[in-house]
Amino acid sequence: MSREGNEKLDPQFIDKLASFLGFDKDRVQHLFEKNYLAQNWGKYEYIFRFDKEISHIERGTVIYEKDGSFEIIMGFPKIRRAMVLDPTIKKHFSGLEKVAVEEKMNGYNVRIAIAKDEILAITRSGYICPYTTQKAKEKLNLKFFDDFPELVLYGEMIGPDNPYVPKDIYGIESVEFYIFDIREKNSGKPLTISRKQEILEKYGFFQVKFFKKIPMETAAEEIRKIIRELGEKEHEGVVIKDPKMVLSPLKYTSSQSNCSDLRHAFKFYNETGRDYMLSRIVREGFQTVEWNEDKTEFEKRCMQLGKSILDPLRESIQNVKNGQRLYEEARIRVKDLKTAADFEDYLKRLGIDAIFEEPQLVGEEYLIIIKKINKSTNDKTQAIWQGETW
Amino acid sequence: MSREGNEKLDPQFIDKLASFLGFDKDRVQHLFEKNYLAQNWGKYEYIFRFDKEISHIERGTVIYEKDGSFEIIMGFPKIRRAMVLDPTIKKHFSGLEKVAVEEKMNGYNVRIAIAKDEILAITRSGYICPYTTQKAKEKLNLKFFDDFPELVLYGEMIGPDNPYVPKDIYGIESVEFYIFDIREKNSGKPLTISRKQEILEKYGFFQVKFFKKIPMETAAEEIRKIIRELGEKEHEGVVIKDPKMVLSPLKYTSSQSNCSDLRHAFKFYNETGRDYMLSRIVREGFQTVEWNEDKTEFEKRCMQLGKSILDPLRESIQNVKNGQRLYEEARIRVKDLKTAADFEDYLKRLGIDAIFEEPQLVGEEYLIIIKKINKSTNDKTQAIWQGETW
Repeated sequence: MSREGNEKLDPQFIDKLASFLGFDKDRVQHLFEKNYLAQNWGKYEYIFRFDKEISHIERGTVIYEKDGSFEIIMGFPKIRRAMVLDPTIKKHFSGLEKVAVEEKMNGYNVRIAIAKDEILAITRSGYICPYTTQKAKEKLNLKFFDDFPELVLYGEMIGPDNPYVPKDIYGIESVEFYIFDIREKNSGKPLTISRKQEILEKYGFFQVKFFKKIPMETAAEEIRKIIRELGEKEHEGVVIKDPKMVLSPLKYTSSQSNCSDLRHAFKFYNETGRDYMLSRIVREGFQTVEWNEDKTEFEKRCMQLGKSILDPLRESIQNVKNGQRLYEEARIRVKDLKTAADFEDYLKRLGIDAIFEEPQLVGEEYLIIIKKINKSTNDKTQAIWQGETW
Repeated sequence: MSREGNEKLDPQFIDKLASFLGFDKDRVQHLFEKNYLAQNWGKYEYIFRFDKEISHIERGTVIYEKDGSFEIIMGFPKIRRAMVLDPTIKKHFSGLEKVAVEEKMNGYNVRIAIAKDEILAITRSGYICPYTTQKAKEKLNLKFFDDFPELVLYGEMIGPDNPYVPKDIYGIESVEFYIFDIREKNSGKPLTISRKQEILEKYGFFQVKFFKKIPMETAAEEIRKIIRELGEKEHEGVVIKDPKMVLSPLKYTSSQSNCSDLRHAFKFYNETGRDYMLSRIVREGFQTVEWNEDKTEFEKRCMQLGKSILDPLRESIQNVKNGQRLYEEARIRVKDLKTAADFEDYLKRLGIDAIFEEPQLVGEEYLIIIKKINKSTNDKTQAIWQGETW
């Protein structure tokens, strides 16, 4: 979905980049032509992002010139999902004595780093979001970037004023950044969990909840208890890590999180990927078997699953029948209306159909409601109510 | 999925076929090369089937030489689905005073006709199934084909000894053929409903249940009642037709049928198409809104949906955990073991992995259990139980 075209690039620049990446010049040229390597726009034109995974460089990785060479901020490594806790944890972390368990929060993935003297919030896809960047500058202790210019914060933007994944469940008034990893630039190498915690504490950053280190033998059982407790609060799940961060992490989520994904997916049933829906449903199947649920628990799970699917579906279908348009509501909160205007521009460049309502003054800030139109589900549902066949 | 290769074809034959179809010679050559037009095998080699819709010739249409020219048996026309009864019926059949309502039975679609002095059962895809052909010869009054060599029966093979869609719900001991359309060869033109009924009665054929003709104004309401009654018996739904068969039919199904499809789909969750699953779920959403269901009815529907998904999922996951292999069980009943051997061959040619158990003598016939292995769901589930990630 790269809407931006690359500017005409200097052949010398391409040579230099090819040599830095260790790629053929023709290959780099090809990556640019296909927009697999694409420029950001406006004042972030100097930042290139990988729109596709290329030779183990994750999608969303960004690269820019610095001091006569280049600097890389690696993308978010994909975290594999355990469908059952046992034996997946033992197999995946074989050789370790203990695993560390952290909360997986439900927010918007963002990397924050200093690139060429500018603090940037970089999205999962490698875009520079002007709103998230502004919020990061307001919310974070920026001394960190002076002290550690070579480190990158990997975190989640959490809270109701997050225009991508608005959530009220964490008791946050506006937005906060919760950090889960610190990684080095260029190599992407993560700090160990203890070193990460030490730095995050020193600079007063929020960090995702650390539960504990658990011996391998009891990990599945203990994590199951943690997941049940998280689920009761509608929290998402856990990330299970090697304390030294040598082995890659694993994730596992609560039934409530699966159902919450489904509620959103079926509200916009014609937009959401079929695979996305199916995977959430199948997780429920494995969890009920692994947890050996009795008839009552199983029936409760069936009812929750059925409702998570049919409730939003019914609501969308009914709303369109009543002549309403389907949209997703989100909001932002800004000190300066320029940030909102930049963000509106940014969404437009990304091809997102969003309506920004009039700003409301709240304290010293402006709250702006954003309605993202879901055209496909809307049009499909409307056509059916007008007598179209499936 | 055409596993058969076309034999080397005589250029003169291709010329002749091209001229009959009104296509370029090169185009026909291309269709053969791509296997879009493919030969059946063995003694049915003379029958060509369209494996793809080509210029309004439906997929599954078959063609063969006859009396110096060619004869065509048109494929099953795709029947469009109403997602809501009102206004879809009014829109689709606009101009008619009444629509005719017939039962949509849950069986295996088959066309039966005489081609070059041979009575054949032709599947939806245009294959000649040796088992279905044999059953048709045993079950149908073959005088029809002498009297009307230019007509084709379009029907369903129904009952527990149907190896494709075995169903016990119709009170049939083995299998029977229920006819829903009679169409002319070559043109594919259907007889009117009254003419069809007259002929089917005359030859003593089973026909799908005819409910009644309904005036347009009350059609949605009356069909809703019919659907509720059919649903209570786990029957599938209805096909709504223009009595003159000029306008194309519409179909509409019961919630129980959607749920039954889902039960099968989630049993083999890694085989079944995502679109197949989603469409069944979305139908439930439209039905509950159109029928304006109250809280109790809606909750019952949620529970049924949840159970239709999670019950088979749980069972498959549990079975694999217990070391069992997942398979689909079906059976056939034959007078002559040669038919079973031919059918086994036939499935192998189609690439279906099926195990035929030892024949059991029942009366004067042999009953043979067939286990179709669902390798993909089996392997995926097993891998997860061995600690693989999703």
